[in-house]
Amino acid sequence: MNAEQILAGDRGALARALTLIESLRPDHQAQARALLRQLPTRQTQRVGVTGPPGAGKSTLIESLGLLAIKNGRRVGVLAIDPSSQRTGGSILGDKTRMEELSRDERAFVRPTPAAGALGGVARRTREAILLLEGAGYDLILVETVGVGQSEVAVSHLVDTVLLVALPGAGDDLQGMKRGLMETADVIWVNKADGERLPAARQAANQLSLALRLLGSRTPDWRVPVLTGTALEPPVALWEALQSHFTPGVLEMRMQQGLYWLERGLEERLLARFFAEPGRSEVWQELRASVANARLSPEEALEQLF
Amino acid sequence: MNAEQILAGDRGALARALTLIESLRPDHQAQARALLRQLPTRQTQRVGVTGPPGAGKSTLIESLGLLAIKNGRRVGVLAIDPSSQRTGGSILGDKTRMEELSRDERAFVRPTPAAGALGGVARRTREAILLLEGAGYDLILVETVGVGQSEVAVSHLVDTVLLVALPGAGDDLQGMKRGLMETADVIWVNKADGERLPAARQAANQLSLALRLLGSRTPDWRVPVLTGTALEPPVALWEALQSHFTPGVLEMRMQQGLYWLERGLEERLLARFFAEPGRSEVWQELRASVANARLSPEEALEQLF
Repeated sequence: MNAEQILAGDRGALARALTLIESLRPDHQAQARALLRQLPTRQTQRVGVTGPPGAGKSTLIESLGLLAIKNGRRVGVLAIDPSSQRTGGSILGDKTRMEELSRDERAFVRPTPAAGALGGVARRTREAILLLEGAGYDLILVETVGVGQSEVAVSHLVDTVLLVALPGAGDDLQGMKRGLMETADVIWVNKADGERLPAARQAANQLSLALRLLGSRTPDWRVPVLTGTALEPPVALWEALQSHFTPGVLEMRMQQGLYWLERGLEERLLARFFAEPGRSEVWQELRASVANARLSPEEALEQLF
Repeated sequence: MNAEQILAGDRGALARALTLIESLRPDHQAQARALLRQLPTRQTQRVGVTGPPGAGKSTLIESLGLLAIKNGRRVGVLAIDPSSQRTGGSILGDKTRMEELSRDERAFVRPTPAAGALGGVARRTREAILLLEGAGYDLILVETVGVGQSEVAVSHLVDTVLLVALPGAGDDLQGMKRGLMETADVIWVNKADGERLPAARQAANQLSLALRLLGSRTPDWRVPVLTGTALEPPVALWEALQSHFTPGVLEMRMQQGLYWLERGLEERLLARFFAEPGRSEVWQELRASVANARLSPEEALEQLF
């Protein structure tokens, strides 16, 4: 597989290149980077999709992707999920539900997310975004699985974070963790139809109030809270995502590059440190001593160095 | 100055020991650690106080400290403020307002916060907490200045985070950033008296609603939202802080120890890496290339190693 095949639209070559990026083998990673260097850089839009399990993220991504295609875009879909194991099958098995989008030649849906530690997953997701962009996809949708810190990681990878929420019983939102609100630029209250419409509208009103109360993440942007169902083309959502995608958002990519540069340096220094024989064992002993308060972190570090 | 003086209640010796801890000189830091090892470990309670500038944190800390003393406690007060410069005077100059608490021999108020990079500040604050505890203070109040990430850092240093909020015009809270809510275990809406009482009660109700909507940080704890004024002893606040201080909270200290151990390892590896001549210059060039997108973070890291 080579850059020419990918640029010619060979989907099998693209899939194999993504597999290279997801590989943990250094030679595969070097090959993947060499490939990335041969691909052009394009004007693209990156959207992260967060929300609790069961909120309907996949179905919404399909609707949104199909709408984007109608608007002349080419759509790449990735997932970020540090908890999944490549060998053990993906908890995103329901990605096969994106049937219509997957069949469209103007879209590329990568069902299997990268696995491993979050830092590595996020970095590989970043390279997968660049690969899809190099291959000509100009709207990249990155789904998170809502486990641990993947929402924070995705916010450093995309231009806009879309939070999919679900009205619950009473005035709660189903399965919502406090951290999810933090990173949201646009909120979509899903499954707002039929009997659930009043609950969804109430949830949206209360979310708007809470956001006003809590202040905004970006000075010039008031987070819109929309309601709807993924069964119809989410036109209002599409427009909100376009409104958020301003030159200021693109400037953020520079900061994101520096963020991953710094994380990468830390990760490499740690890997090099623990590559020395015996280091990991000493570290585990010191951790245990700190955990049961026999040593302070400072004393443990002095013993380590 | 030595451990005996500190244990005997010599306040001058304690102040000099804190200065050692705040020093950036390695020999001072080694002396400080040797001193810490000679002091006993005690059962203590640590409370972080966050909130926007002008919310009245200092005045509330004084009221709370005086109430704690009436309840038989000995109170240590610290501040965490990565933005201040020791030489340039402290923006916490208003700490002199804690006059009554400062004069009480059962309290020790350290007006000048540690300066420098946040990681170092937080680690030195951690050692200052241990020093005050070793000296016999069993309630430590750590004030943050509400700049940058100091609220997140303080949440890794204390058992309970108290957020001081201020009712604004309309349904906003004055100067509240979205991140402040994230770390709060107890919320106090301040200056709730006279004309401002209705606005404060409304703000408290809306905060409670928002918290219910956003989910809680700890499974078994519902964040209480209290209203009051720092001009009277904040009895309800004192009781809420005691309710939150359970054995489960103490277990959290183990996790905090591991957190600082890991941060400390990263910081030392970075310091060692940049101690090599020429490294900083290369790093700055690579950063600039990443910032203007001439290099990807991955390519920059490959050039660095």
